[in-house]
Amino acid sequence: MEHRFEPTHYYRTFGSHAPVLRVRPGDTIVTTTADAGGFDARGERVADPGNPLTGPFFVEGAEPGDALTVRVDRVVPNRAHGFTRTALAAHVVDPWDVPRLPAAERVNWTVDLSRAVARLETGAAAMPVIEVPLRPMLGCIGVAPALAQAISTATSGPYGGNMDYRGVEPSVTLQFPVFAPGALLFVGDGHAVQGEGEIVGTGIEISMDVAITVELAKARTLGWPRGETADHLFTLGNARPLEQALQHATSELLRWLEADYGLDASVASHLLGQCVEYDIGNVFDPAYTVACKIAKRFLPNLH
Amino acid sequence: MEHRFEPTHYYRTFGSHAPVLRVRPGDTIVTTTADAGGFDARGERVADPGNPLTGPFFVEGAEPGDALTVRVDRVVPNRAHGFTRTALAAHVVDPWDVPRLPAAERVNWTVDLSRAVARLETGAAAMPVIEVPLRPMLGCIGVAPALAQAISTATSGPYGGNMDYRGVEPSVTLQFPVFAPGALLFVGDGHAVQGEGEIVGTGIEISMDVAITVELAKARTLGWPRGETADHLFTLGNARPLEQALQHATSELLRWLEADYGLDASVASHLLGQCVEYDIGNVFDPAYTVACKIAKRFLPNLH
Amino acid sequence: MEHRFEPTHYYRTFGSHAPVLRVRPGDTIVTTTADAGGFDARGERVADPGNPLTGPFFVEGAEPGDALTVRVDRVVPNRAHGFTRTALAAHVVDPWDVPRLPAAERVNWTVDLSRAVARLETGAAAMPVIEVPLRPMLGCIGVAPALAQAISTATSGPYGGNMDYRGVEPSVTLQFPVFAPGALLFVGDGHAVQGEGEIVGTGIEISMDVAITVELAKARTLGWPRGETADHLFTLGNARPLEQALQHATSELLRWLEADYGLDASVASHLLGQCVEYDIGNVFDPAYTVACKIAKRFLPNLH
Amino acid sequence: MEHRFEPTHYYRTFGSHAPVLRVRPGDTIVTTTADAGGFDARGERVADPGNPLTGPFFVEGAEPGDALTVRVDRVVPNRAHGFTRTALAAHVVDPWDVPRLPAAERVNWTVDLSRAVARLETGAAAMPVIEVPLRPMLGCIGVAPALAQAISTATSGPYGGNMDYRGVEPSVTLQFPVFAPGALLFVGDGHAVQGEGEIVGTGIEISMDVAITVELAKARTLGWPRGETADHLFTLGNARPLEQALQHATSELLRWLEADYGLDASVASHLLGQCVEYDIGNVFDPAYTVACKIAKRFLPNLH
Repeated sequence: MEHRFEPTHYYRTFGSHAPVLRVRPGDTIVTTTADAGGFDARGERVADPGNPLTGPFFVEGAEPGDALTVRVDRVVPNRAHGFTRTALAAHVVDPWDVPRLPAAERVNWTVDLSRAVARLETGAAAMPVIEVPLRPMLGCIGVAPALAQAISTATSGPYGGNMDYRGVEPSVTLQFPVFAPGALLFVGDGHAVQGEGEIVGTGIEISMDVAITVELAKARTLGWPRGETADHLFTLGNARPLEQALQHATSELLRWLEADYGLDASVASHLLGQCVEYDIGNVFDPAYTVACKIAKRFLPNLH
Repeated sequence: MEHRFEPTHYYRTFGSHAPVLRVRPGDTIVTTTADAGGFDARGERVADPGNPLTGPFFVEGAEPGDALTVRVDRVVPNRAHGFTRTALAAHVVDPWDVPRLPAAERVNWTVDLSRAVARLETGAAAMPVIEVPLRPMLGCIGVAPALAQAISTATSGPYGGNMDYRGVEPSVTLQFPVFAPGALLFVGDGHAVQGEGEIVGTGIEISMDVAITVELAKARTLGWPRGETADHLFTLGNARPLEQALQHATSELLRWLEADYGLDASVASHLLGQCVEYDIGNVFDPAYTVACKIAKRFLPNLH
Repeated sequence: MEHRFEPTHYYRTFGSHAPVLRVRPGDTIVTTTADAGGFDARGERVADPGNPLTGPFFVEGAEPGDALTVRVDRVVPNRAHGFTRTALAAHVVDPWDVPRLPAAERVNWTVDLSRAVARLETGAAAMPVIEVPLRPMLGCIGVAPALAQAISTATSGPYGGNMDYRGVEPSVTLQFPVFAPGALLFVGDGHAVQGEGEIVGTGIEISMDVAITVELAKARTLGWPRGETADHLFTLGNARPLEQALQHATSELLRWLEADYGLDASVASHLLGQCVEYDIGNVFDPAYTVACKIAKRFLPNLH
Repeated sequence: MEHRFEPTHYYRTFGSHAPVLRVRPGDTIVTTTADAGGFDARGERVADPGNPLTGPFFVEGAEPGDALTVRVDRVVPNRAHGFTRTALAAHVVDPWDVPRLPAAERVNWTVDLSRAVARLETGAAAMPVIEVPLRPMLGCIGVAPALAQAISTATSGPYGGNMDYRGVEPSVTLQFPVFAPGALLFVGDGHAVQGEGEIVGTGIEISMDVAITVELAKARTLGWPRGETADHLFTLGNARPLEQALQHATSELLRWLEADYGLDASVASHLLGQCVEYDIGNVFDPAYTVACKIAKRFLPNLH
């Protein structure tokens, strides 16, 4: 079943808030997200700034200890302009280079869906043309955290959150551990494009048309979000420092290979040792995000 | 001019050792490297274990303050077997998972150049077949460090060293800051294959046939190694923690874009912000390695 | 005015929960805390385990942008036994030493107020006597966080929280930034004794009799908790990694010296450079805690 | 036997350099050190800047696998002025505070041995008087590293080095692992005073009169430097990040308590858990230093 949902209220925490819609496993939700600054498709302010979220969506039957599967069907910018922060974050360059960074301001980009590019609009005649290919994604996706916590959309954790991972794009399938009845799924913080690491603190921030389809895996305990693309399995670790995010993701992928692919720790170590890949989600947010990946082509040989 | 050099002695530090060969800018060196355990193409022990190095090669005219350019022409395994360590490193999984790791032993792989694959040889009937595509690379490459230091081949720094970066493969061109007269270039630690991060502490360790061509860029001050492929520019930061390696690499790429591509810090920030990519070299060695990359296709637009 | 408050409900998050008591600036609250496992003075379970909190106390007149001053008047164990976790945390030793650690169990200590010592009770005849001097403190103290967040008592932040800092002991005066109307003060997680860093993950966990006196500093913006003892000023940074906790605390003390002691950044740097002291609060919790301290005797000379 | 040695050459690396003096276990060496900038007691430049070292001293009988014991008998400034760097290091404050830091310059302090204080000399009439008590120490002390490495005096490792730990002061006894024949002991980088962490990148840098007495412990394998004062045992871990320095030091103290004090890992964990103390040596140098300490009064009870 397909639900169309138009948000009228936005949350700034991932938490056990009152659901805006109840759906069943197998259902698709067609909705929209405001941009990170709280502006919608018409460019009107509809929420306070700071990654306002659409949701939460209550998934019937989801209980703590289950896993919620979320297929991202569609993430398409629904207006023709986005914005970015103009300066590298102070903590992604050498500390002694911080005084050399430009001032952090906001600049606009024109988003051209027909040509699938975004172009920086500076108004400065001397400025070179900067045009980059679109790669729409969602910075925020996740469920209500454990212990009835309500946690700022600035950060992330085992429940997902503001991971700013470029892999949260159409056709990916994600899984999240369920901590609250109904799982309580949220989405937001669309980026028309984003560099790896989100090192200026933003992608090209824009409102989005979004479609997602949910499924439920009963009694499936995850430590961290997992995902699958056409080619890869991956896990997402969210923490500071970067080493800890990498440790969480690597441990989670090891557990996955052991539990679902019948590999013992030794075989899984060999395989990961020579074939693992890592992506950096973000190194800007309070918790960083690292994806640990294995190409699926290495797995069929093993059976 | 092409020099053929067969090593008879191997160093275990990057340092201002007596050169084994003097070459000129533009010359090519055709040589071999022993594997990380000190075994050569015939499988005979020729050096103590621990990344024994071939070199140093003295490049005529190289002085501190210059940059040494090294094109990697050829890295080909010169025997049919390699070895790996069997267990994930204790520091790449969650600390509480360390007791679950398998014991760290050494296993052999058959390296089949005709099929371009490596196959794990365990002797265990129940073991699944693990076969991975070859991607030969050099774990160690670098020059003599500053201050007449002599630094173990376990680690890395501004001079390069044991970076265990998969991008040190045929057709890449690297640049190193020169700290000592003649630069004093070393190579070693070949891997037939290596996963990103070198998370079991080895690639498939093997002896190699190597060809490299050197050039000299006078009065060109680099903070960290730089490189270029057909598609990308990249810089390499070597440090712990991973954040610091990423900071070094990001600062170095920013400087490069400013100095050689005429971008001001603001334009460079926009470009890096939305287009940067990162690779993790290794998260095993005492200093980790991060590559900060930008696709070259974004640069021509700017002129 | 002195209020006596006996808790009947305990929270496991620092959040904007319904106040259990309203007090005025200048008032003293005399209350009790359950231990980290949820047991009270009689050894009866009164709450779920995981640092259950007493509070929140609403302080009349406190508004976001103010600072809440809390003098710790009294922290006294109110029963004769406490417990500890028996093993060093996996992440405070070298990763390769983790398999050597003893199993993590719970052991009891006898707490003898008359002799002011705690003695380990193992029942093992061969066991040496381990007796340590009491130094009662509160592991948890803080206010409701910003953005109506509700954050687990496992961790800490700008609002205080589970800092596990030995300096939260009788006669210290603390200040917290106020993020919610009434500030909403919580206390809990008493330790009869605790080593620096809380490296086994517990102090000697025990229920406490507690008395605290609150004051209000209007329109006083703090970045992080601050404190004062007879001899020192200090600030508390809460974050991972340890460097970031240290950065937060050092920046906060620099701001304090500039704003309240009339030092310019240069004089403050000289003074901190040669006289600063650091304490490690904890290196166990999700966010670590570092105290940055300056002896007050260096400050009078400056006026 | 007492040796008087006046240096005429200074090294800028800890390495297997030609010994300047050969001594026997039990001997005392009375010597001097130049300041970090290369200036001696008369204020004359005698070495290049960057922590020039006095030594190396060859200790007869010392072989790899032994431990070298060094008692610090005397560290006394031998001139009346020292210097400091004026600004907090960029990496000890929050990254966004870096642009607020004062410029890094060099300022002089008058060192008054009769009153045991140092006074900042700025020449600025408006400047408050900053006067701090002397606490002379050596920033650099250590032996030749393993593998015939030669490592810059900027940093530190298992061999000691530029640890900038305030505990390297008169009456402390240190132990270092021996990696080279004769151990090859070096000293340098005296500080009249230094704040914990060396957060401006210097103490009050000054030349020193130094006396040290060496002993040899045969076949005693240490992982990291150890020390003893009247009240405490301690170990020194040198690494980045700070967590790793803390892990090295904690693991080393655990091993020491097990091997020399007959504690099993469980008893040692109880004791460290409730009684451990940490000092931060430095958070400025390429490798940070953490001391892990236990008061000796807790140890006698155990026998």
